[in-house]
Amino acid sequence: MKRIAILGSTGSIGQSALAVVDAHRDRLRVVGLAAGENAELLAEQIARYQPAIAAMATGKAIDRLIGTGVGAVTIGGTGRDGLVAVASHPDADVVLCASSGTEALEAVLAAIELGKTIALANKEVLVMAGGIVTEAATRRGVAILPVDSEHNAIHQCVHGRPAEDVRRLILTASGGPFRGRSAGELEAVSAVAALQHPTWRMGRKITIDSATLMNKGLEVIEAHWLFGVGADQIDVVIHPQSVVHSMVEFTDGSILAQFGVTDMRLPIQYAFSYPERWPAPLPPLDLVRAGRLDFDAPDTTAFPCLSLAYRALEAERSLPVVLNAANEIAVARFLEGRIGFTAIPQVIARAMDVHRPAEVSTLAAVRAVDAAARAHALDIARGLELKV
Amino acid sequence: MKRIAILGSTGSIGQSALAVVDAHRDRLRVVGLAAGENAELLAEQIARYQPAIAAMATGKAIDRLIGTGVGAVTIGGTGRDGLVAVASHPDADVVLCASSGTEALEAVLAAIELGKTIALANKEVLVMAGGIVTEAATRRGVAILPVDSEHNAIHQCVHGRPAEDVRRLILTASGGPFRGRSAGELEAVSAVAALQHPTWRMGRKITIDSATLMNKGLEVIEAHWLFGVGADQIDVVIHPQSVVHSMVEFTDGSILAQFGVTDMRLPIQYAFSYPERWPAPLPPLDLVRAGRLDFDAPDTTAFPCLSLAYRALEAERSLPVVLNAANEIAVARFLEGRIGFTAIPQVIARAMDVHRPAEVSTLAAVRAVDAAARAHALDIARGLELKV
Repeated sequence: MKRIAILGSTGSIGQSALAVVDAHRDRLRVVGLAAGENAELLAEQIARYQPAIAAMATGKAIDRLIGTGVGAVTIGGTGRDGLVAVASHPDADVVLCASSGTEALEAVLAAIELGKTIALANKEVLVMAGGIVTEAATRRGVAILPVDSEHNAIHQCVHGRPAEDVRRLILTASGGPFRGRSAGELEAVSAVAALQHPTWRMGRKITIDSATLMNKGLEVIEAHWLFGVGADQIDVVIHPQSVVHSMVEFTDGSILAQFGVTDMRLPIQYAFSYPERWPAPLPPLDLVRAGRLDFDAPDTTAFPCLSLAYRALEAERSLPVVLNAANEIAVARFLEGRIGFTAIPQVIARAMDVHRPAEVSTLAAVRAVDAAARAHALDIARGLELKV
Repeated sequence: MKRIAILGSTGSIGQSALAVVDAHRDRLRVVGLAAGENAELLAEQIARYQPAIAAMATGKAIDRLIGTGVGAVTIGGTGRDGLVAVASHPDADVVLCASSGTEALEAVLAAIELGKTIALANKEVLVMAGGIVTEAATRRGVAILPVDSEHNAIHQCVHGRPAEDVRRLILTASGGPFRGRSAGELEAVSAVAALQHPTWRMGRKITIDSATLMNKGLEVIEAHWLFGVGADQIDVVIHPQSVVHSMVEFTDGSILAQFGVTDMRLPIQYAFSYPERWPAPLPPLDLVRAGRLDFDAPDTTAFPCLSLAYRALEAERSLPVVLNAANEIAVARFLEGRIGFTAIPQVIARAMDVHRPAEVSTLAAVRAVDAAARAHALDIARGLELKV
């Protein structure tokens, strides 16, 4: 029996994770749940899974949770402290980090220090604090199992092989809803259009990141930390069908690729079951029905966010923090209709230009760089606002 | 330093294997070479690689070899004895079985009994004597490393994973030069047309087997023995570009696939280097240039040989021996222009119909069934001869 704590249980990944638990009640038990503001759904989850501990983002949310007449559960607190309490619970073997943003950084580090396995579905943890987190995991001998379909695919491909056999990682990207459009054609695209992802159903922020290819850029940075390879060993290839989730090229030129249906329950289950594999209650991939798989080079002229991510990774140190912070600000402003789609990379590039990269070896330093970059990015975004 | 003996050194696979040795002279040394009739090429190979032992198919070929003024090398003998002598040489760590047909059966078994690793590029060894060979390999703890690109791909995909995690093997097939044609359209195809394989350059017999899909059928039987899975766990999918060499579906529905350029040096090197991987002097696969990969179901109405192979495997016992023997006769008669392309499966089906499956637990029994089936198949083929 593996005992699971879930940070972000009411989000898309969190709900899929609980569906995996439902399919394997004999193998998985939920011991902790942390959510943001959705008290009603968390109350249902507590009733169903009876965790030992629960937490929410704010005191107001906790009040609503208690107001639902929720049963016996320890309230671990709010905000970062609540996340740390759930992730540190002594009963938890595996902590699934599926909360968005940077709130869970301390919780993930706490779980690592306690020797718990990390199932990682949050990008910011590694983009912002990859050096800190992987150093701690190595020192404590803790496994970080990626839940992102791309990194999960790479984990499956490299499993059981020595690191020196890996020559190159090839991340696949669907290309998003605007694949094939020129930079000029992208000027006037709306948030509504950008939210229509062709192959995956995800949250709003990550769907915009898929449309700009920043999502893939953040994954390049994550891949660097997860698999210990340099920026020059990570390639991105556009694969619109999202059947091949990613690939690894070995020193002899042979490539292993992982194929699967586009359902997050598969990589979540892999992370929960690892190193075992369990049957999954999903129809298998029908390759004959898929029929055709295409591969193309990414267009970094129309989608400069991907190049910006490589630039940040090559500079290392604090620049990926700035990239991520500026992107969050720019995407939020785009979703609010304040700036255009092509202004997103402009905001990020200018925020990176004004930043002087520095070492960031503590979470406090990371948070300081993040806050400064957000303020800068907001200023820049205001200067790029659409005239209505 | 791994010391290699090559059975079939002057053939297509043998020459590719020596090219692999050339690229890794610091890691590989040739200690034995066995060839068929090509004395001139074997003499060159002996001069270049200075093996301890050599053998040829016939005394006449040996005479020609000696006539070339070949240097100091022990002549291991002729025919099956010569192959056994080369495969059994005390200096050999790995025996590459790349001779065609059934002559190498005893040699492979002898090498297994001596604890040598087998790199297997010959189909008949497992199709005809899979039970005998795999029983011996298991008993002696000997690895059989497949060199066929499909089985090599599967070996790469299952490496490091427990056998019970495997749900299904998916062998890819290019479909050969006649992919998409109906049974009626295949009646009049010539040997010249059938010898034009779209993606691989191979010998004549295997090229015809690719055109009839019998090659894939024989590979299904091999996969059964190599990976211990039943006929119902082995699927074939048509993939005309021959980029994906084969795939494995695991219990959770995830599929691992191996991609590579179509060059036999890659799987040969994998078998020589295993469990290591070494750099290969080949350009890597360029997926963007490949651009598109297609997958389709095989047409077993137009290409009944594939179904015949499944029928033989399901019956087990001696029926695969009959399938293989009748196919060899039928292909030879087709290449001589005596029977039509669609008569090939007819010869095989009728030879299988008249055979009463029996246990074949010794090589003598295998050879007896083989001889009887060849005689039967020749009779049947004579009855199907084209009227000119």
